[in-house]
This record gives sequence, structure tokens and C-alpha cells, in this order.
Amino acid sequence: MAFEKKELKKKSDNVSDWYNDAIVKAEIADYGPVRGTMVIRPYGYAMWEQVQEIFNRMIKKNGVENAYFPMFIPMSFLQKEKEHVKGFAPELAVVTIGGGETLTEPLAVRPTSETIMYECFRKWIGSYRDLPLKINQWSNVVRWEKRTYLFLRTLEFLWQEGHTAHATHEEALSMVHTAREWYQHIYEDYLAVPVMMGKKSETEKFAGAVSTFAIETLMPDGKSLQSATSHDLGQNFAKSFDVTFQSKDKGLEFVWQTSWGLSTRALGGMFLAHGDDDGLIIPPMIASIQAVIIPIVKNDTDTEKLLSFTHSVEGMLQESDIRTKVDERDTISVGRKFNAWEVKGVPLRIEIGDKELESASLTVVLRDTHEKMTIAVKDAAKAITEECARMQKRLYEKQKQFLTDNTHDVTSWDEFKKIMETTKGYLRAFWCEDAECEKEIKDATKATTRCLPLDAPSESGVCIHCGKKATHRWIFAQSY
Amino acid sequence: MAFEKKELKKKSDNVSDWYNDAIVKAEIADYGPVRGTMVIRPYGYAMWEQVQEIFNRMIKKNGVENAYFPMFIPMSFLQKEKEHVKGFAPELAVVTIGGGETLTEPLAVRPTSETIMYECFRKWIGSYRDLPLKINQWSNVVRWEKRTYLFLRTLEFLWQEGHTAHATHEEALSMVHTAREWYQHIYEDYLAVPVMMGKKSETEKFAGAVSTFAIETLMPDGKSLQSATSHDLGQNFAKSFDVTFQSKDKGLEFVWQTSWGLSTRALGGMFLAHGDDDGLIIPPMIASIQAVIIPIVKNDTDTEKLLSFTHSVEGMLQESDIRTKVDERDTISVGRKFNAWEVKGVPLRIEIGDKELESASLTVVLRDTHEKMTIAVKDAAKAITEECARMQKRLYEKQKQFLTDNTHDVTSWDEFKKIMETTKGYLRAFWCEDAECEKEIKDATKATTRCLPLDAPSESGVCIHCGKKATHRWIFAQSY
Repeated sequence: MAFEKKELKKKSDNVSDWYNDAIVKAEIADYGPVRGTMVIRPYGYAMWEQVQEIFNRMIKKNGVENAYFPMFIPMSFLQKEKEHVKGFAPELAVVTIGGGETLTEPLAVRPTSETIMYECFRKWIGSYRDLPLKINQWSNVVRWEKRTYLFLRTLEFLWQEGHTAHATHEEALSMVHTAREWYQHIYEDYLAVPVMMGKKSETEKFAGAVSTFAIETLMPDGKSLQSATSHDLGQNFAKSFDVTFQSKDKGLEFVWQTSWGLSTRALGGMFLAHGDDDGLIIPPMIASIQAVIIPIVKNDTDTEKLLSFTHSVEGMLQESDIRTKVDERDTISVGRKFNAWEVKGVPLRIEIGDKELESASLTVVLRDTHEKMTIAVKDAAKAITEECARMQKRLYEKQKQFLTDNTHDVTSWDEFKKIMETTKGYLRAFWCEDAECEKEIKDATKATTRCLPLDAPSESGVCIHCGKKATHRWIFAQSY
Repeated sequence: MAFEKKELKKKSDNVSDWYNDAIVKAEIADYGPVRGTMVIRPYGYAMWEQVQEIFNRMIKKNGVENAYFPMFIPMSFLQKEKEHVKGFAPELAVVTIGGGETLTEPLAVRPTSETIMYECFRKWIGSYRDLPLKINQWSNVVRWEKRTYLFLRTLEFLWQEGHTAHATHEEALSMVHTAREWYQHIYEDYLAVPVMMGKKSETEKFAGAVSTFAIETLMPDGKSLQSATSHDLGQNFAKSFDVTFQSKDKGLEFVWQTSWGLSTRALGGMFLAHGDDDGLIIPPMIASIQAVIIPIVKNDTDTEKLLSFTHSVEGMLQESDIRTKVDERDTISVGRKFNAWEVKGVPLRIEIGDKELESASLTVVLRDTHEKMTIAVKDAAKAITEECARMQKRLYEKQKQFLTDNTHDVTSWDEFKKIMETTKGYLRAFWCEDAECEKEIKDATKATTRCLPLDAPSESGVCIHCGKKATHRWIFAQSY
């Protein structure tokens, strides 16, 4: 539905209010009737379809195959891996009635699918010939969260979950990092959001994993969003679910497993990172509409001629794989259209009126800089492709600068506390790796360990908080 | 996992046993741990991805947009449309616990999404400018069935559900038939299964619809599978959910709605229809692998040279958009590979050994006729494309013949009963359109009305069962 630009809240006033307002007004999503649920509207869902297409291309090339497992998990399955059930039990939605009758065993709605998948892996894997087994699932999952936030934390969300089984730990670890690199690629090269990556602390790792590697991204308010995770499950689940294989020479062994996931939260992070007081800004590489074409019909315009020209431009751009849409609604004004597409964050607006028709040119307006330019129709496909590439780079560089500006090495506890009270951001500091100390830091500053960067060297230092011996500088931030 | 051909049950012995056995052995699907649930394995899921791609292409061209709505529906929503809740209440899975606490209002897991979507439609639709609204959703749904059957009836299944709102009944009806034609196109031109189409009786129509149009297909045991449905919802839901629009001239009106769905059941029908004692037969148009290439390495084979030739053939076929896979596993024998791919129903098997390498030719075996042919590599892409097209046609024609042979006009009740006790199939007969009579027919013969064909003329006759006045010949069959 149409709306006035002035109605939109300002990002410069309050990021959080702006975000909720922009998501709804841009027709990306809407609130569901059940607390914490969300409707993903066509304009938002089209971006998820882009993510699916990009990710499917990457994983299929690697030999990962898509499949689908049931959403209902018997409670007894979840209980097989002790750490796993401890982590997920508080967040479960439970079906207790089916077909009008009380069920003998209640069923959990999947919060993640390790347990139900690995029961099958046990049946499917007999010998080394069946390995590696690499499965991915696109599905909905449910986690009963107390505080919810459109896209960033909803009771039900969409995601992909990859699950693999290997003959050796080395091969499994390599898979863990391949998945992490896929996520980095999606964030940096498509969503235009630079990442902070590394290993999670024992407290923050996935329930049931040996270790978790995470992609973290910095949001405008200086908080960190856990944006994707890749887990080395070791043989933990293999032992709980008895997933074994006959090896080439050594008899029966447990498989080595990994799991890794990326959810619709990724889109939320992208919306939150980019965008300005006029609405969202969608990076061209992920935009379902890269250029919206708006024909401007005046009283004395030869409408038929103008629209025919408009569609020939559309056809030409689509030939060059530029995702375009002509907005030729005659029920709302041109001014309203401009506003609506700005709020939606479409990278380029192309205006075509009598002047453009006569001069065989296009008026192009860039969403992020508001720069206006005239482009000859004959050069349009090339020029617009280039403008998209430049905007993609510009958006990324802006976020990269923001990340750099807000990542600080700190050596004093007072400084740590002060930054967490003001600008927030990422703090790199020595930490003793003791869970109790980690909790005290959180209680004092709301900051938690986000990760130990992959390239962090082994050093000799003292913990930023407790002063005990520390060998690595960890990344701290307040978490979403 | 590898298996022996002799283990597979025979379709000629018992269709139902063969079906369950073949689905599992072909690694299409497996049983889930909860009664009536199913795991769709990669080989089966790839076919569902084909269906999604084909259907997305058709609907997007028509302006239908994909979206995603929450899976949890408040019970009070379902109760708003009286007929709807009556139809679905007995089949619901109900979540009563969330985050460890008993919910104030229990939540139904969607059996279909009319109620949750139309609550949003109410918010989104303001005036005629917002119409038509055409939304499609790919999702999982749950119906607590008593008797289940892999793909054909499972507690949880995957589907698409289209939901549209229009300004006029005429436009809505046109949408209903467009969707029905899409389904016919998928069944006949991709799944190679001819359809019986028409309007459902009052008893058999969708709970809450004004009328339901169905695609029915005839299975090998003479029973009919309801294979896709398209509903004219009239203004029933619009009135229950207060979905109105400001019309151009006449003030506030209720919208006219449609909904239509196709599920993973479609694949089940296809598996059941085609296939023989050696396993499944997948029609080339839907097959995720159209040709499997098996290199045959003997003791004195120059393996490197043979594999290089094999991959050049693969590349050439893929260039021509033939979906191929090279099975170069060295852990199982060639004989086992032949059997495995036969059970999986891959349309063409291409054998490449020393003889083929020397003569620059391929040995090609057709899955349905078992015909073996030699094709020169230089002609291979064209020849294989043609063989795929011929097989597609052959599979369809065989089913078409089966449908024709098993569709009978009957005028006597004795004949009706006798056919239903023996060969079954479709019976075309006058029926009085009285629900009580329909029930008596079912009790006596297990047959129900399947549909009133679209082109059924208005005639003057007497009901096959009760002898009362009847104006149309309906299609009867036993239903899956």
C-alpha cells in the first residue's frame, strides 16, 4: 500500500525504531499473529530466494545434496546428546496433541535437526564407501525466544542447515572451514557486510559441538550479530547416535561430523547495516530488483510511445542480466512511487519522461548517494552494470570503515568498560578463557566473547578483567 | 548403499509392496521415526526441486509472488470459518507448550494457510489498487492422518499453496482454472501421467470453498489419486476475515478469493504409475539425472584415457542441457551399478568401455524398453535428446492407454458394483447429486464421486444407484 515518506522514522534518531518501521513500510515483512512470529512478504522473500540460489550453487558444486527431514522430533531423540538437550530444551515448542488425541510421546518442533538426521545417518552409513555424506536442508525451525525482533530473532525462522559425516577428523575440519568461507563470501560479496570471524568460547559454542566457528557482523548500534555458525561436532553425536562405519583397514569406527547454518537473520543484518533516513538500501548483488524504471507520463505525453520506449529499455537491461521492474501503475503519483522505491532500497531508479524519450537517454538516480546522472540509452546496460558494481563496493567499503573505526585493542579494564558504555563495537583484549571470568565481564559490561579470530597469534599477557595469565586476545562485544 | 536387484519386490506380484520397497531401495525416501513421517532423500528431493523450478517459472510469469507465512496458527483463527474448522479440526497437530510453559492459546501447526494468510490480506488490501493480490508459498504442512503411505499420505508433507484475492468473481474463477491448467501441464507434460479433471461434489469439496476443481490420476490398482486441487473460495473467507476493498465506484466490497495446491504426493503418483519389476522409471522431463554414464574399466584398460573420454562425453551432453552423472565409484562392481540405477529409474544408461572408446561411440540402454543401441559420439547429444523425448511420449501414451482402458460408461448398478469388485478404474454414470445417495454408493462399493468432468453435457437420465432424476454423468472411483 502507498504511504508518505514523511511517515518513516529516522535511522539517525533511533536505529531500532527505524529498522522495525522500515522493514514493515518497505513491505519486506509484517508481524505474525502469534507473538514473535513474522510474515515474509514477496519483496523480502525474493531476497531469500536470491540467497538460496547463490548458496545452492556453491554447495552443489562441492557435492552437498539437498534433502528434507521431518520437523517433529521425538523428545527421546533430543535427550540422547546431553549437552545438546541442555542447550535447546528451554526453547522448545512441543506438540502434545495429534488428531484429537494426547500423544504418548510429546514431539518437539525442530530447533535444529542434528538428532533426527543422525538417526538416519546411522541407517545409511555402512562403510567408508558411503562417506563423506554431505546433506543440506532448507527449512523452518522454531526456537521459543523471549525477546524477539523482526528477522534477527523470531520464534520461527527459515534457514539452511548442512550436516556432513566424514571418515577422518581432518576432513571434517576442512568441511567446517569450507562452510565458514561460504558464509564469509555471502556476507562480504553479496550482502556487502564485512565479517569478524573466529572460534567461539566454551560458553558460547553450539550445544553438543567440540568447537564452533562463527561469522559475526557489527551493527550500527555497535552490537555484534552472530551471523552464521559452522560446528565441528567431533564424534559427540556419532557416539550418542551410534553412527559408525567399516573403515578400509581398522574395523568399525565412529564418523566425524559437522553442521553449519545460515538463516533469514542474514537479511536482517543486511537491512540494519545499510539504509539511511530515507529507508533501506539493498546491495545490488542481492537485490531482487536492481533498477526500477518509472515512466513519467504528463498531460501531453504520447503515453503509448513512452511506454513502448520504456519496455524496450527494460528488455535491453534484462538482456544484460540486470534485474529490472517497470512501475507503470496509473493509480499512484510519480512522487509517491519515488518515495516507495526509496524506502524499499532499490539500488537504481531510472526515470523516463518526454525529455528522455526525445534524447534517447535515461535519468538514473543512485539510492545510496542520491547522485543523479544522464545516461545514453546505447550505453545504458554497460553503465548501469558498472554503477551497480560501484555501489556494491561503496556499501561494503563504508561498512568496512565502520568496522575498522569500531574495533579497538584495549589493555585496561577501565577503558573496556568505558567503550562498552559509550560507542560499543568490538574490543580485542587478552582473556584468561575462564568461564567464570567471562560471566563477570558480561555482568559488568553486557559484553561477551564473540570469537577468537582465526589468525590470533599465541602471546603472553594478562586477562583484561581478572589479571590472570592469558595467551590469546579475544574479540568482545555486546551481542544481539 | 548398494543392494542386490533380486531383493526388490515385484510390481507384478503386489503393486503396494513393490512401491514401498522401490521407494526405499531407490533411495528416494525413508521412514521417519514418528509414525507416518518421511525423510525425502537427495535423489527424491532433487525431483521436488525440479517441480519447484517448473512451477515457479509458470507462476512468476503470471505475476504470482512467493512469500512465507508463520506455521503456527492460533486456534481461534481456524474457528472463524465454520466449514473450514469442521474439515480440519480432526487432523490437527497442536502445540500446547512453548519455552517450557503451557500456552494460553494452543497453536495449530498449519494444515493449510487460508486463515493465517487472510488475516494479513485484510491488513494489506485497502483498495482496488491493491488487487489482484497473488501469493504463493512453498512450505511444510501437517495433517494427522490415521493410515499413511510414503509420499501419498504422510503426517507432514511439502507443498505449494497459492492464494489470491480479486475484485470480481469472474476474475477469481479465471485464476482457479489457470491454476488447474498449470497442474494439468505438470502432470501430463512433465510427470507423464494423464489426468481426469473436473468439479468436486459438495461432500468432496475443500472445507470452506464454494467449489473445488480437482486433478485426479488413475493408479495401477485402479484407484484414483486426488492429485491437485484448485478452489473457488467465493467470498466465504473474505466475510469471515473481513477482507474488503474500496472499489472504483461501488464503495466497500468483499474480495473474491482462490486457493490451489500441489504437494509431494505428485511425485508418489508418478512413481506408482510408471515403473516395473526392475524398479522405478522416472520420466526424462522430471528426472534429475536423465542419463547416467558408467565407465567400464577392465584389467587392461587405460583407465586415465577412458575416464578422460567419459568426462568429455559428459561435458558435451551437459552443454546440450542433458542432465547427466558419471558413476565412477571404484568400490562397487559394474553389475551392481547397473542394477542400482535401474531401480532408481534413470531414463538412460550410457556404457563406456574400451570398445566404445576405440569406435568413438556409446552404448545406450533405455530404462523402459531395455532396448540397447550404439550411438556415435558425434551424434550423441541430438540422439539422446530425441530418445528422452520419445521415452517421455511413450510413458505418457502407456498411461493414457491404461486410463482409456479403465474408464467405463455404466448404466446398470450391477455392472457398477461388479467393476468395483474386480478391475476398478473410473466409472462414468448418472448421479442424482444427493449426498445421502453418494454415501450409500460408497458403503456398497468403496467408490466415491471423483469429479464432474468440465465438459460433461447437461443430459436427462436416472441415478445409477437410487434411480432418481439425474442431469449429469459423474466420474466414480475408489480413492487413495
